[in-house]
Amino acid sequence: MKNRQIYFFRRPDGNPTAEVFQERVVDVGVPGDGEILCRNLTVSVDPYLRLKMYERRSYTPPLRIGEAIPGRAVAEIVASRAPGFEQGERVAIYGGWQQYAVVRAQAARKIDLASFPAGAWLGPLGMTGMTAYAGLTRIGKPQRGETLVVSGAAGAVGGLVGQIGRMMGCRVIGIAGSAEKCRIVRDEFGFDACLDYREPDLAGRLESVCPEGCDIYFDNVGGEISRQVTARFNDFGRLVVCGLISQYNGQQPAEATAQDEFMRLILTRRLTVRGFIVSDLEGECPEFEETMGGWLRAGKIVHREHPRYGFEQIVPAFLGLLSGENTGKSIVHIAEEKSA
Amino acid sequence: MKNRQIYFFRRPDGNPTAEVFQERVVDVGVPGDGEILCRNLTVSVDPYLRLKMYERRSYTPPLRIGEAIPGRAVAEIVASRAPGFEQGERVAIYGGWQQYAVVRAQAARKIDLASFPAGAWLGPLGMTGMTAYAGLTRIGKPQRGETLVVSGAAGAVGGLVGQIGRMMGCRVIGIAGSAEKCRIVRDEFGFDACLDYREPDLAGRLESVCPEGCDIYFDNVGGEISRQVTARFNDFGRLVVCGLISQYNGQQPAEATAQDEFMRLILTRRLTVRGFIVSDLEGECPEFEETMGGWLRAGKIVHREHPRYGFEQIVPAFLGLLSGENTGKSIVHIAEEKSA
Repeated sequence: MKNRQIYFFRRPDGNPTAEVFQERVVDVGVPGDGEILCRNLTVSVDPYLRLKMYERRSYTPPLRIGEAIPGRAVAEIVASRAPGFEQGERVAIYGGWQQYAVVRAQAARKIDLASFPAGAWLGPLGMTGMTAYAGLTRIGKPQRGETLVVSGAAGAVGGLVGQIGRMMGCRVIGIAGSAEKCRIVRDEFGFDACLDYREPDLAGRLESVCPEGCDIYFDNVGGEISRQVTARFNDFGRLVVCGLISQYNGQQPAEATAQDEFMRLILTRRLTVRGFIVSDLEGECPEFEETMGGWLRAGKIVHREHPRYGFEQIVPAFLGLLSGENTGKSIVHIAEEKSA
Repeated sequence: MKNRQIYFFRRPDGNPTAEVFQERVVDVGVPGDGEILCRNLTVSVDPYLRLKMYERRSYTPPLRIGEAIPGRAVAEIVASRAPGFEQGERVAIYGGWQQYAVVRAQAARKIDLASFPAGAWLGPLGMTGMTAYAGLTRIGKPQRGETLVVSGAAGAVGGLVGQIGRMMGCRVIGIAGSAEKCRIVRDEFGFDACLDYREPDLAGRLESVCPEGCDIYFDNVGGEISRQVTARFNDFGRLVVCGLISQYNGQQPAEATAQDEFMRLILTRRLTVRGFIVSDLEGECPEFEETMGGWLRAGKIVHREHPRYGFEQIVPAFLGLLSGENTGKSIVHIAEEKSA
């Protein structure tokens, strides 16, 4: 039996074209112990694949030239060497862009195409839905009454994020790339508003649809759109970096701005970046004084001071702090204790 | 009774000089109900004050011209109109850069100068210590064996962060601004290594002292140093944005790079920025399929597909996704189901 398969032929320089891929016909694999042979019915096409086309490190290993293109698929089992998996059953698998795939049964998920169609298992009930749901609920942490901004709002993940956010009581603003997409986002997905980023003055329009600022930004695109939205963040805002599709093409690292490069690191290395002011966290550290006092008493923490003496030394102490003259904690003794 | 007081005289243009401040003598205030009159003994001098000198919004309201300079102080109570607070008792208060202060007793913290000196109450046991402790433990979340990088390592907060990190089992690398500071950081504070950022090739030296990359970066300085450290982050790294002292002076917003401006927003608005890949969060969402399935069945989530048909449509679907042609979830049906 033969298997049509699309493989990675040439690393793209900027915008990928059809020349990046080639097709070949190979023999269908034979399942080993614990494996199943599947016939792909529907394959998923996802933007993260673009990131895998770079040679440099990303969150998944880069594609090798000649490698079959990976991807989720809904498939039916043609032959099984795994107990509990029967010929004819439907599964969601990493089937790739090919007609047949041999996969470990352990990594296959049985699905019921009678209750939901293939597209739903690859969409809201698949990785796409999990991305939207987990990213919004676990990182975005929406609270009733907050404003949620979603870029790539007409896309598979973005459209779900906004709908989930609405159910959780947020005001939801989408950003998308055409008037028609914005119409779909508003009328079909029920977002409160949607802005076409191709129209002029995104900053001004954002301000008018987010008069109370932005609390959560679920970012699928990166670049200039992200700069505009982040500038409107309220205190304690959450930026969920899910994708940077505007950066996947064309811009090589050297051309990206420092912020774009930083966002790429945040995404691909799954960083958490958080700004804080001590008063935000004070209530969360009831053990602080006892712990720190114990360390000081036990000599486990070295406390180094940069003391000065006299009221007139306050300003020089501050200026010295900014110019890097001081080491340790800057304090100024301005009066002697009286005996209590 | 008279009170010497330093007030904000002129907004600095770049590096503050002594001309930013002026001194005046005012009458000592009279405590009202629930207030105490305190005599400042030791005042704390902290870099965050620089941020308050800008006119634009920061995490605290900007200083007004003519306003007395605020700041933490160790003081003794001169007169009390608050039950439980007695003349002669020592307190840590927002006393400001002046000889006397009237404050609400509720906001005063009684301290014992016999067990720890004033500098300790303003340092490791004060806001400085809380900043280091809370930022590192609650945001940095150190794990045994991880690498922690701390900028401003010779400073009050940075020196504590590294010492706490060592106790928690991290390998700790400091960054500071002179050979002497680096010596103190290594020899007195016990960091594993400390790099002088004024010497050439910080990137190369970082690589040699962090051969396994960086897991936590506690940032007190921002700017180019931060760019060098963030480039060395491992997956799931945490960037604790505590201060940006390199950015407080000189650079006006228009001159700052996009990343510096982004970091300023992260700090002043206390944002959380987190990159993720769906597989990182999968285990955390056991309720996902039931919840999403329920929403879909109830029609609460609109699932929009961008379907195509035929094997030869896989590549065009992917290219269309990147060029913004698609709306909703992109899938390609490549085969019909057989009856099971």
